[in-house]
Parts: sequence; structure tokens; C-alpha cells
Amino acid sequence: MSEIRVGLLGLGTIGTGVARILIEQQALMSRRLGKQVRLVAAADRDLDRDRGLDFTGVRLTDDANAMVTADDIDLVVELIGGYEPARTFVATALAHGKHAVTANKALIAKHGEELFALAAEKNVAVGFEAAVGGGIPCLKALREGCAANAVESVYGILNGTCNFILTKMENEGADYADVLKKAQQLGYAEADPTFDVEGIDTAHKLSILAAMAYGSKIKFDDVFTEGISNITAGDIESAAELGYRIKLLGIAKPHGDGQVEQVEMRVHPTLVPVHSQLAQVSDSYNAVQVSGDFVEHTMYFGRGAGERPTASAVVADIMDIARVVPDGVEHLAPPMGFVEAERRNLETLPVADIECEYYLRLMVQDQPGVIASVTSILADHRISLEAMSQKERSSANSVPVVMLTHATTEGNLQAAISRIIGLNAVEEEVLILRKESSVA
Amino acid sequence: MSEIRVGLLGLGTIGTGVARILIEQQALMSRRLGKQVRLVAAADRDLDRDRGLDFTGVRLTDDANAMVTADDIDLVVELIGGYEPARTFVATALAHGKHAVTANKALIAKHGEELFALAAEKNVAVGFEAAVGGGIPCLKALREGCAANAVESVYGILNGTCNFILTKMENEGADYADVLKKAQQLGYAEADPTFDVEGIDTAHKLSILAAMAYGSKIKFDDVFTEGISNITAGDIESAAELGYRIKLLGIAKPHGDGQVEQVEMRVHPTLVPVHSQLAQVSDSYNAVQVSGDFVEHTMYFGRGAGERPTASAVVADIMDIARVVPDGVEHLAPPMGFVEAERRNLETLPVADIECEYYLRLMVQDQPGVIASVTSILADHRISLEAMSQKERSSANSVPVVMLTHATTEGNLQAAISRIIGLNAVEEEVLILRKESSVA
Repeated sequence: MSEIRVGLLGLGTIGTGVARILIEQQALMSRRLGKQVRLVAAADRDLDRDRGLDFTGVRLTDDANAMVTADDIDLVVELIGGYEPARTFVATALAHGKHAVTANKALIAKHGEELFALAAEKNVAVGFEAAVGGGIPCLKALREGCAANAVESVYGILNGTCNFILTKMENEGADYADVLKKAQQLGYAEADPTFDVEGIDTAHKLSILAAMAYGSKIKFDDVFTEGISNITAGDIESAAELGYRIKLLGIAKPHGDGQVEQVEMRVHPTLVPVHSQLAQVSDSYNAVQVSGDFVEHTMYFGRGAGERPTASAVVADIMDIARVVPDGVEHLAPPMGFVEAERRNLETLPVADIECEYYLRLMVQDQPGVIASVTSILADHRISLEAMSQKERSSANSVPVVMLTHATTEGNLQAAISRIIGLNAVEEEVLILRKESSVA
Repeated sequence: MSEIRVGLLGLGTIGTGVARILIEQQALMSRRLGKQVRLVAAADRDLDRDRGLDFTGVRLTDDANAMVTADDIDLVVELIGGYEPARTFVATALAHGKHAVTANKALIAKHGEELFALAAEKNVAVGFEAAVGGGIPCLKALREGCAANAVESVYGILNGTCNFILTKMENEGADYADVLKKAQQLGYAEADPTFDVEGIDTAHKLSILAAMAYGSKIKFDDVFTEGISNITAGDIESAAELGYRIKLLGIAKPHGDGQVEQVEMRVHPTLVPVHSQLAQVSDSYNAVQVSGDFVEHTMYFGRGAGERPTASAVVADIMDIARVVPDGVEHLAPPMGFVEAERRNLETLPVADIECEYYLRLMVQDQPGVIASVTSILADHRISLEAMSQKERSSANSVPVVMLTHATTEGNLQAAISRIIGLNAVEEEVLILRKESSVA
């Protein structure tokens, strides 16, 4: 039986999970694959810690540089995280004709194009299923399972920390700050949660999904990104009363006449219908919804993080690559979802042109005529209202007014908002959320 | 650019959908695949009907026999349905060294083993993603996406007709017969609905899923199968009061010490927790939930039938096969999920050994001591109760009593039931449903 020889960079949480599968699940993997996947070497700075694994026959080393160029390794798995030295190690491995697999979304979002070009040049593969949706085989489903479709939209709940916080806020009627503290105590949120709660992690993943869906280049810097830190328990309650649940979504859609010319990419808290499949994705679960012109709505659900689920996706990538590496033949079946030469440099839709339905929360003074002034400005901008609710709350002089609008462009909405906050009776701070009625 | 040449058997609903993709979506597919998929020929007995497609360059023929052996065809798509002549056509194509793709679950469930053996002998592929879960790439997710996992369970909502009926019964508080009639009028159910509502279609699909999950042979005849026709609006209401929703599930689980020795396969109406992801799958949608020892719970959701979604899965299979057929090289990357030589002839777990939690609906005479007699028999069999509810209903002399039990074996339960219906005050007809608390 032929074999593929793996070198593992990083024996942290995910790395240990990957090693565990490669060591303990060998027999099952060989029966499924018809080939051996053999863990040849693993590099980490800390080789003393007991990882509860029998590394017999595996070369443990603290010399990652030597490993990524070693002759007895066909595929390098990068699980160090961050930009450097991860990028240099992966690039070096590819340059030496080795395949690479990574779970590093930041690396792929920022340096993916450079790595893909290098891999194409060397006729080797880069696997990064684990970078999006953790254990969920969502890139595979999108690129291969939906390969016959023009993709009409991608919606993703891609950050477990945010989804956990939003779920707890709803279930307990609790405020953001309290739930965040609890999430930090439980290990669901980092001490500095910015990366997660401000949507940056979701934007990394969305930029990868969008590139695969539309055959474009990865453009992380172009993603319009807002986080969940301004949402209150009151917003979640108001949304629920209107029939919606708030989720942090990454959203990608195509624009163009006949063929895709521009890609829309945005990450923000989003109202989704409470009975939709996406709204049911709770706690730290992730899900990706892909809709295509033939397949209609599909959704892929599972664990978006964690040692074992992420390791599952990493090893699936290794097996996928091993499967299409013919023995002794210089031919690699390229991954599906746009062969490298066919990916185009599509423009990102300008933020002002994004069309949405909106949820607006204004703080207005409780006096006659204010609402009339606000709605008259909206009417000037041809923004019509789907629903409005005003409640008495005990906050000083102002009361919150919640409005749901029909679709308009971001540019038009922002113009209206800047006039509205110019009204004396309206406070400057306006919460703008967006609504997607068409999710399944 | 190299190409794969496709011959299409059957231009009915799905066949027309497949032709539509191959004709209209060419450019997109080539960019994703790096190869051309070319529709060379299509065979159907009715060539006169206008299918709204431009068949220029496609050989239309009523001679299917000639098509499956033609030299200018690399891959045959079978969309005739049923056992014969579908089986003969596919076998002939394989024997002539052509790849085959089908959406025919009955064919694969019954004759899959024969076809797989033939394909392995000829070093060609058989694709059947569309046979399970329609447009959902669930076989791909199971076989490839979860390839690193020992599969702990597979739960599937695999029949859109049943799911539509159960959803409508719940939403409208309506009885089975009324909803079935409505489903027939809407085209969601056949004039003779037996195949769907008695669980046979689900059993076909489950037997395929189980074989892929556990590397066993397809054993459709071994699937324990019950349908939904005995469920009343009252059962759905009782289940809801207890926190459950009733779904027709196909269920597969492994048994054995260390490695899989027996496979459990069953299809029956099942109570699932109302807040589970599976419980949210409504109307004619399908979903497959795969849980693995590393990936934990995953779920794949979408359209389980219909021209366009099914065609999407058929073409994904064609592209998948085209991708791994190297030009001029006699090497085919075998599909993942147990290479043919490694699939074993695993035993099916005997029905009496299946362990479940149960929902029992007994009709008992409303007189003192009856419940005590029933529960005493259950206690004799070491079956403990999780919940019980008894309602006054206006049905003659008997009232329904609903019981939820803790886990016991099917054999033990049936022994208890046969003693219970021996009681004078209990009617013979007992509805037995099963409960799965561990679905996600």
C-alpha cells in the first residue's frame, strides 16, 4: 500500500488532536483511503510536555526549518497559527514541492493568494478546510458539492464566541458585558475578545468563502465588518417581538449582469427570521448556508472550533490530497472550486451600494412631533418602514424607538441617519443592524 | 482543455435538469474544474417533447443500448429510475469501461454491490450522491469530510413527503389522512404513497448511508422499517407537550468492541427534542446528521428532491469523477469512504437487540387499577418510565394513555407489550414510537 508522509508543525491543542487521529485512527483511515497516511515528524518548541500519545516512530524535533524541507516528508501541516513564522514555513514547504494543510484562517485570509500561486507553480495542493467552520466540511460542500451551481448567497455563523454570547443574552435576558465575562470564565472567549466580538475572525473566514464561491481573489481588507458589542438585551428582545433573532453573520453575494462582476462581502449582527434554520444554530455551533441556482438552499452545521473537530477537518484535507496524488505520476488533480488560473480579480461591491433591510434603534426625547420628523426624513430618502415600536423605558429623558425598514442602500440609509441625528430631539448614538429575510 | 464526454439516459424531470446544467452552466463548470464536461448524447423514448433546451451538438436517440456502449462516451448518467432496465444499462456501461452516475436509490440499495464490484474490476467510478438527500452533498460530507472519524451515528430525515406531512399535521393540528390528501393535491405525495409513507424510500437511502459510514455491504433487506401512517394529531400533540417533535428518521449506529462488528439500521417515526437542529427541519426539506468521534455533531440540510436540486448533485458527481480521471493515465483515484476491497460483510444487529427509549400510546378502559397493572408489567421487564400522560377523550369506552420509557431493548419491550395487550382493559392496538434524546 502506498503512503503519504506527514510532517506536523505545532503540537498545541489542534496539533495534538491531529497527531492523535494520525496515530490512533490509522487502520480506519487506510481502509477508507486505500493508502497509508503516516506521521513522520512533528516539530514544536516544547517537546517535554506529556501529550498522552505514543509517538513511537515519529521524529520529534524543535527544528521546524529542517522539517519543512526534509526529504522524507510529502505534506506539511501548519498548526502554529498567526502570520509569521507560519507563512514562511508554509511557503518554504510549498517551494520544496510539498503539499500543505493549515487551519490558519488569518494566514489564508491575508497570504492565501501568495501561497496558492506558489502551490500552482509547484503542482502541489494547499488544504484549508479547517480554517472555515472548524470541523464542518463546508468548503468541500461549497466547492465540490455545489460545483454545478452559480452561488446566489453565502451566509455563515462563523464565530462560536459570538454565537455563544448572543445565545446566552437571549436565553438569560442578560446584557453583553455580563455574558462576555461569563464566556471568558468558561473559556469560550479570550481575555482580549476583540478579534472575535468585533467580527474580524468572521471576516477572515468570509473572505475565504467568498473567494471560493465566486472564483475571486481573497480580499479580507475589503470586508465591511461590524461586531456585536453594541447590542443590548433590549435589542434582542425587540427583534424577538418582531419575529427575528440576532446572529453575527458573514454574508457574500454576487453582482453583475450574467456573470459575476462584483462581490458583496459583509460581517455584521443580522436579524434572521426566528423559524429559519440559521436562527436555530445556538451556543458555540457554527453553520454555513449556501444557496445555488440549482441546489436552492443548503446548510452545513457543526462545531466551529475545538481540538477534535478542527483536527477532523485537517485530517480530511490530508486524506483528500493523499487520494489524488497518484503514485509515481507527476499529476495532481487540482482542487475544485476554480482552478488557480481561472480565479479572477473581482471588484468588491462598494459599501454604499450594499442593499439591505435595516433595524434602527434611536434614542429620542419623549415629546410630540419627534417621530413625525424622523419618519419624514426617511420618506424623503424613499425609505419605507416595515414596523416600528416605541417603549417607555426608565432611561433619563430619552426612550428607545425601534424601526424596521424595507430595503434600501447603505449609502442612502447613512445619508438619512446623518440628517436624523441632526434633529435636536434625537441622540447621536444610533444602532444600525441589518436584516436578511431570505435565509432558510 | 481536456474533456469528459457524457451520455444521458432518460430525459424526464431530473434528466432535463441535468441536461440544463450541462448545456447552460458550461463556462462556470469549466472554470471550477479545469476540464470540459460535454453532453454528447441523450437517450429517451420520447424525443418530441419540447424541453426548452438547445440540444445543438447533442446526439438525441431512442436507442439507449447503443448509447451505453458508444465509443465517444466516457460517463453514462442513468436517470430512468426503477430496477430494470436501469440495472442492465448501468452494468453494460461499466462493463464497457465507462463511469456511471445515478440518482436511483432503489437501484443502488438493491443492486449497488453488483455494480460496485463491476466498477472496481474495470477501474471506473459509480457516483450516487443524488440517491441520498437529493441536492445535499451528504455522502460527500460523510465519506470525505468526516473521513478521519469513526462514525458514532447517522440520523437522516430522508423523505420529503413524510416530512411535509408531519410538519403540516403539527402546524394545523390535522390528521394524517387529511394532510396526505392535501399533499397529493399539491404533488408532494404520489397517488399510491406507500413507498414514501411506509418508510421504504427512507430505508433505501439509509442502507446506502450505513454502508458508507461503516464500510459494510448495502443491506436494504435488513433495515427495520416502520412508516408514519399510524400517527395521529393526538400523538404529535402529546409528543409536543413532552418536549418532542415527531420525525421519520433513518438511523444507523455501529456495534462492536473496538472495531465495528454489527450495524444497527432502522427507519421509524422518532421523537426528537423540540429544540434540536433536526427538529427544525420542516416541510419537504431533508437533513442528514453525522456524528463522529472527532468531529462531534454535524448536519447537512437542503432539498431532498426536485428537478434542480437533484440535478445539482448528479452534476457534482460527474465533476468529481472528471476531476480525478487523469488524461492518458490509467489511474483512477477511488472514491473515499472505504475502497471497494476493504468493505466488509458486516452483520446487521438483530431487531430484538436494538436499544431504544419508547413512546407508547395505549387505549385503556377508564377504570381503576388498569394503569397499575400496566406499569407493574413494565416493572417486571425492568422498563422504567420517564413520563406518563392520560387524557380524557371522547372515544367510546377507552382513553389514550401515553408513556415515555427509559432505554430498553426492542425484544424486551415487545415481550412486555404482548403481556400488556393481554390485559382485559387494554385494547390490542398499541402505537410504539421511538425516541432519540442524543440528536443535535
